[in-house]
Amino acid sequence: MLTNTKYVYNFEEGDKNMKLLLGGKGAGLAEMTRIGLRTPPGFTITTEACNYYFKNNKLPPGLWDTIVQSVKTLEAKTGRVFGGAPKILLVSVRSGAPVSMPGMLDTVLNLGMNDQNVELFSKESNNPRFAWDSYRRFIQMFARIVLGLKGNKFDEVIEKKKKELNLTNDFELSEKDWKEIVQEFKQIIRSAGKELPNDPYRQLELAINAVFDSWKNDRAVVYRRINKISDTMGTAVSVVTMVYGNLGTNSATGVVFTRDPNTGEKKLYGEYLNNAQGEDVVAGIRTPSAVEKLKSEIPNAYTELKRSADILEEHYKDVQDIEFTIQDGTFYLLQTRSAKRSAAAALKIALDLRMEGILTDGEAVNLVQPEQLNQLLHPQVDTKRAGSPIAKGLAASPGAGAGKIVLDPDEAVKMKEKGEKVVLVRNETLADDVHGIAVSEAVLTARGGMTSHAAVVARAMGKPAIVGSEDLKIDLDKRGVNFKQDFMWEHQEVTVDGTTGLVFKGNVPLTIPELGNEFREFMEMCRRVKRLGVLANANTPEEAILARKNGAEGIGLARTERMFLGAERIPIMREMIMSDTLEERKSLLEKLLPLQYNDFVEFFRTMDGFPVIIRLLDPPLHEFLPKKEELMVGIVETRHKRKSQAKDKKLKEDEEVLRKVNSLAEFNPMIGFRGIRVGVVYPEIYEMQVRAILRAALKVKEEGKTVIPEIMIPLTIEANELKLVRERLQKAIDEELKGKELKYKFGTMIETPRGALTAGEIAEVAEFFSFGTNDLTQMTLGFSRDDVEATFLPKYLEQGIFKVNPFESLDKNGVGELMKICFERGVKARPDIEIGICGEHGGDPDSVKFCHRIGLKYVSASPYRVPIAILAAAQANTESKEVN
Amino acid sequence: MLTNTKYVYNFEEGDKNMKLLLGGKGAGLAEMTRIGLRTPPGFTITTEACNYYFKNNKLPPGLWDTIVQSVKTLEAKTGRVFGGAPKILLVSVRSGAPVSMPGMLDTVLNLGMNDQNVELFSKESNNPRFAWDSYRRFIQMFARIVLGLKGNKFDEVIEKKKKELNLTNDFELSEKDWKEIVQEFKQIIRSAGKELPNDPYRQLELAINAVFDSWKNDRAVVYRRINKISDTMGTAVSVVTMVYGNLGTNSATGVVFTRDPNTGEKKLYGEYLNNAQGEDVVAGIRTPSAVEKLKSEIPNAYTELKRSADILEEHYKDVQDIEFTIQDGTFYLLQTRSAKRSAAAALKIALDLRMEGILTDGEAVNLVQPEQLNQLLHPQVDTKRAGSPIAKGLAASPGAGAGKIVLDPDEAVKMKEKGEKVVLVRNETLADDVHGIAVSEAVLTARGGMTSHAAVVARAMGKPAIVGSEDLKIDLDKRGVNFKQDFMWEHQEVTVDGTTGLVFKGNVPLTIPELGNEFREFMEMCRRVKRLGVLANANTPEEAILARKNGAEGIGLARTERMFLGAERIPIMREMIMSDTLEERKSLLEKLLPLQYNDFVEFFRTMDGFPVIIRLLDPPLHEFLPKKEELMVGIVETRHKRKSQAKDKKLKEDEEVLRKVNSLAEFNPMIGFRGIRVGVVYPEIYEMQVRAILRAALKVKEEGKTVIPEIMIPLTIEANELKLVRERLQKAIDEELKGKELKYKFGTMIETPRGALTAGEIAEVAEFFSFGTNDLTQMTLGFSRDDVEATFLPKYLEQGIFKVNPFESLDKNGVGELMKICFERGVKARPDIEIGICGEHGGDPDSVKFCHRIGLKYVSASPYRVPIAILAAAQANTESKEVN
Repeated sequence: MLTNTKYVYNFEEGDKNMKLLLGGKGAGLAEMTRIGLRTPPGFTITTEACNYYFKNNKLPPGLWDTIVQSVKTLEAKTGRVFGGAPKILLVSVRSGAPVSMPGMLDTVLNLGMNDQNVELFSKESNNPRFAWDSYRRFIQMFARIVLGLKGNKFDEVIEKKKKELNLTNDFELSEKDWKEIVQEFKQIIRSAGKELPNDPYRQLELAINAVFDSWKNDRAVVYRRINKISDTMGTAVSVVTMVYGNLGTNSATGVVFTRDPNTGEKKLYGEYLNNAQGEDVVAGIRTPSAVEKLKSEIPNAYTELKRSADILEEHYKDVQDIEFTIQDGTFYLLQTRSAKRSAAAALKIALDLRMEGILTDGEAVNLVQPEQLNQLLHPQVDTKRAGSPIAKGLAASPGAGAGKIVLDPDEAVKMKEKGEKVVLVRNETLADDVHGIAVSEAVLTARGGMTSHAAVVARAMGKPAIVGSEDLKIDLDKRGVNFKQDFMWEHQEVTVDGTTGLVFKGNVPLTIPELGNEFREFMEMCRRVKRLGVLANANTPEEAILARKNGAEGIGLARTERMFLGAERIPIMREMIMSDTLEERKSLLEKLLPLQYNDFVEFFRTMDGFPVIIRLLDPPLHEFLPKKEELMVGIVETRHKRKSQAKDKKLKEDEEVLRKVNSLAEFNPMIGFRGIRVGVVYPEIYEMQVRAILRAALKVKEEGKTVIPEIMIPLTIEANELKLVRERLQKAIDEELKGKELKYKFGTMIETPRGALTAGEIAEVAEFFSFGTNDLTQMTLGFSRDDVEATFLPKYLEQGIFKVNPFESLDKNGVGELMKICFERGVKARPDIEIGICGEHGGDPDSVKFCHRIGLKYVSASPYRVPIAILAAAQANTESKEVN
Repeated sequence: MLTNTKYVYNFEEGDKNMKLLLGGKGAGLAEMTRIGLRTPPGFTITTEACNYYFKNNKLPPGLWDTIVQSVKTLEAKTGRVFGGAPKILLVSVRSGAPVSMPGMLDTVLNLGMNDQNVELFSKESNNPRFAWDSYRRFIQMFARIVLGLKGNKFDEVIEKKKKELNLTNDFELSEKDWKEIVQEFKQIIRSAGKELPNDPYRQLELAINAVFDSWKNDRAVVYRRINKISDTMGTAVSVVTMVYGNLGTNSATGVVFTRDPNTGEKKLYGEYLNNAQGEDVVAGIRTPSAVEKLKSEIPNAYTELKRSADILEEHYKDVQDIEFTIQDGTFYLLQTRSAKRSAAAALKIALDLRMEGILTDGEAVNLVQPEQLNQLLHPQVDTKRAGSPIAKGLAASPGAGAGKIVLDPDEAVKMKEKGEKVVLVRNETLADDVHGIAVSEAVLTARGGMTSHAAVVARAMGKPAIVGSEDLKIDLDKRGVNFKQDFMWEHQEVTVDGTTGLVFKGNVPLTIPELGNEFREFMEMCRRVKRLGVLANANTPEEAILARKNGAEGIGLARTERMFLGAERIPIMREMIMSDTLEERKSLLEKLLPLQYNDFVEFFRTMDGFPVIIRLLDPPLHEFLPKKEELMVGIVETRHKRKSQAKDKKLKEDEEVLRKVNSLAEFNPMIGFRGIRVGVVYPEIYEMQVRAILRAALKVKEEGKTVIPEIMIPLTIEANELKLVRERLQKAIDEELKGKELKYKFGTMIETPRGALTAGEIAEVAEFFSFGTNDLTQMTLGFSRDDVEATFLPKYLEQGIFKVNPFESLDKNGVGELMKICFERGVKARPDIEIGICGEHGGDPDSVKFCHRIGLKYVSASPYRVPIAILAAAQANTESKEVN
């Protein structure tokens, strides 16, 4: 390692594939040099050198000699001498990480200047004002970045000088002014006990170290955490011959996109500043000109810019974001990178580049970020026309909705029935609140994380939601909400933007994105490219319709328990649970059967020709009963207030319910009496559900449609239990079919580590598996979702113990490992087994790609995330086989 | 399978290793035949035939012909004809499973008789009474076993007859009486619509089917479930030439043990009945004679019995339980099998056979069942001198204890301080009750299973315990307990026998087993044989002392949280949890440090020369706070009763605590904020604990003892979190050591599927792993122990979905699979890593053997189960490598 590692690459030696080693900027400069575009000569010090530096607190041995040698090469190429005579060579020292971190890392320009050679530079440029301006810029940057002084002290000196002279702009300052300013700058450095080295090589060494150090500055660390960029990548340093956009009116510096990043339109889009250096553009001191103007101002340079842009776009097969400098009429490229773009632009660009023959289908689908599609699928607050937000929270479910504040779900239903639009505002939501969420335009909660109940349910229903907003306090006595600064009564109007996490007072204007032809064409292209099936999770027939509309190829998870939660259904369900005899339960289940039947009929009709995977009852029964604490407090209250017979009756009922709640209460319901376990102990529930499924399937089949029912059992951990349940249900199935032909499948979710580990045996009883990765994550990691997100998980993400929240994106090393083991064992035991995933992860692009890689047959996502999953599936099929 | 399978073996063709195929009885008869002992000729139909029969509802094709052929061979050997002339051959059709199921399966004697040949048999035997007695026996058995009639009807006929004749004993009935009885028997059969076949071969065929069927009769199914015997083994059928112990006074039948099964003394031990058939011994109609009497009664037969016993014992290398019949002076062996014996006898026999040179060490340790040692380790109620029990429950923790009933733990402490012995009686116990359990002689609860809190804690403390007794109802208003029939006040005396699960009124006599030299010698032998280390789990210094006494080679799990539960400690702990600032917490932890330090000093002193593995704080913090519901109800109560300032103060405090409890409340605490997660968020707690450990270790080292401290982190799921904790603790460690030399280890528990799956990475940070199989079982199976044992698990065991409770014996296919994966990956990453287990399973013999097989270094068991684990470990090392 020590002897043979090559730590320095001249631009001629690198290429675009060396981003990890040379950083984005270094690789771009190398590639542009390689394909014959004009870049200033230079070289790049690798990220490996950076990592060595952090590990050993010094540069690698021998590196400095190599750098000096590379400078000598630059001198030879340019016919100049670094910081010396007769012609002076100055350089920029530029950071450049493998992944773009715009503005986070540091760069020093004009390096190599000192009191002596500034005079030389004056003479050579025949422009002393320019020379002294360059010198002060160098000192200013060096002081801030290398010596660690505050930048505002230097700015104040310049402002003071302009004030003295009654000037407005920097460029009005004269050579003399800059000379005086340079003296004052030096004074600031001296009084801070620092030293500005005279020796250009010393300057270079310190600057390189400083750029390395900038990798670990606070803002860079935070940026990486937010953007999930690894801390161990390190930055490269490019040392580039200076070219000057501030040599006069025939000079300029600018930034251009090869297509419009907002609309995708095919035209140069960008701006430049005449007679300026790079940081002037950023500083916004002067208003730059649109790039079209360059055509008339410096026509030759414009032509070269256009030509370079075309070459780069075709070469990189993507829209580029280009930095350039024109020095006295000569055009130089300083950087090229993939352009950031809006979702709409991304779609249009992908389709256009495909049409232009630059890209294949497989390449084109990779030009859109799956998450970007969210922007297109949901209405958003029109920020230009909305006022200031009154609260902020976690953007839990995208889209915007407005309505009157309601503080409980029953009130929501009542208002809705009156034709009012409502927004449900709660501390947190529970299973009982689902009917309220269903009728609301949006949900807003004070507590909970991205995967809290409110967030999950809202996403599943496609309702905008903001959760965990610390800016609001609900006052149930007053019936109102304290926002950060405003108090609002129940029934006052608010707007919730779940895409941005912002809450607005009143009903603010929204923009509703249109899903144009481009969206449809793009999705069509994705479908051509992908291998993975994309199904949808749906709890109601309405969600099934939406799922089809969004391109789902079936229902991967129809949760039947939500069907028990409607206003007419929950009382029957509760009575069923409270009853102690099989007969009573059976007769109550008979009442629920037609309700389930109707739902299933709708599912099958909607999914004509596509599979509908229906999961039998999963949650613990006590989830359908009132909460224990509320009952207990209620009972005590009633006892104390007891005055009438009516109260006594209520007391008795409550005590009865409490007894049942107590008998069903669990310490850890997540890993308690639920799923197939309920099916084993109370077989009559599953039997009713299976009868409803088959009756509905037969009915819809008679209507001439193609039905593909699949019966899915939740939480299986052992082949024996699934076998028992299957054998028991067989009788009901035979009775329903009475010899009629109907193809159906029988399978199970794999939601526990044991289910995954014993997949070989389970596969002998199941025709399909569906990974329930929410539960599998909870058990594999020992993470109770509701608990850890409220307690230690934020700390774990902050500390970098986990890079991502494992409930948002699959934990590949743990949960993914189990999935691989399960897949191998399942397929070995039953080669034609169908294995998919229906956890929340089915809508997460990274997780979708993982599912593709390990060989799953399909993913099932919330209806709103189906397009995202389709795109991710397409991208997955274009990737070379990665190691996980 | 169909063509070549050999379904029938003559006795000459089998041997003792063919138990699985021939059943215990068949293999024994074959082996005795093979080594030249006298057995009646016969053949065995295999268990494979039985399984074929169950699968296809008929005997395998060709089998019947083979059976007929085998009968012909019998005829040739004996010079007799099956059911015919001139000399009649009768057979017995005997069940015999691979594993002994005494009395569960069926057998038919005297088969081959009918109305015709009974006369022939009279002549041949010259004993018509004997012939008709034999015939009625045959009819009686055939009717019951083959035709499925109730036995009591036949018994009634005989009783009636004796009454008529004013006789007492069966043998007083004459030929004529039996003839009449036979006619009545036939009448019973006819009126039941059944038929007694005349044809001996038809009798044989039906009897074989009936014996096969008996494998699935209710009592056999239940017996197998209780004894964890596989349902798929099936039974073999041996067809044996009849010999008659009821031919006269020179005939007899009996059962003998080759040594005394109660004491182990080396002498024949058993009894016989003169002039009787096998079932007469069982029926207890006549009192049998002790086997010594045979020496004078039929001396030649006795000599042959003694000789056979010696040969069999040496041949089988174990004490034998032998059935024999003497027919007219000729001695026949009918069965031999390993003798059941008491624990004391088992020890003595193992040691004696070792001394006699019959066994090696490795063979001798296999003559004692690990669980048998329990009988030796705990006092028991002397059932001969105690009265009837007043209640029964689950025998959760062995041993017996007597004391005054107390209904809450504080009362227990108060009484104990007065010098009273107490028995804690509760509906169920919680973490808060531990101080009460600690001072009680025994624990008795109305609810909970074998692994409920009360059971686990009591076993860990070696306190006798009965849990889940439905025979008791606590009446807190009256302060007393309703037992099934008796009401007892608090402070009345009871005796609890946790070995048998029985509760007695008053202080009944106990027998206290003495651990004599034999116990010590036997354990010494086990230690020579085993490879696996056996450590102990200990929560207090007292338990550590006991652990050493019982042979533990160190502490495998010292749970530090129990150290926070003492009366002086819990208030500080609660205050610490309630405090909101780091400073406050630190100062409170400073108060806890010396308390922990003192405990650790005692541990290290006791374990001089042995490792002490100390686990840092594990449970969720809310476990140290009062329960939520109690607080809520209390607050409402207080509000309503509020009259004085004092109440208001209490109200405020309660509300404060409730707020904290709410903020710490979890939906699934088991998989929530606990273990290392608490250590990551509140580093100061672990830091205090590590300082206390090192200070104590240094102190005891200075005393000249050898200390081997090992710091164990609970619940790690990811290398990064362990690394973070280790790095943070390093500073505290360095400060405590201040350069002093002290070897310590740093490791982690593996309690989650993810911990096991990512063991490779974790091993880079940990010097040792200890499987926490309680939690690992909970997460792998998704089984919350407290919940599933109270809800569906009993049903799962009953239905045979699981053969054993996975919390009692390791679930090898799920949890065991993860352990293997973890072991492989851990060892690969760090070849010298030490891997053990410290869950409850460490004291379960089956689990200990599994741990041995997969290569673990040690198991850690509760102090009381250390000898059991040592024996299991020794046995494990003598087993040939089994497939799991």
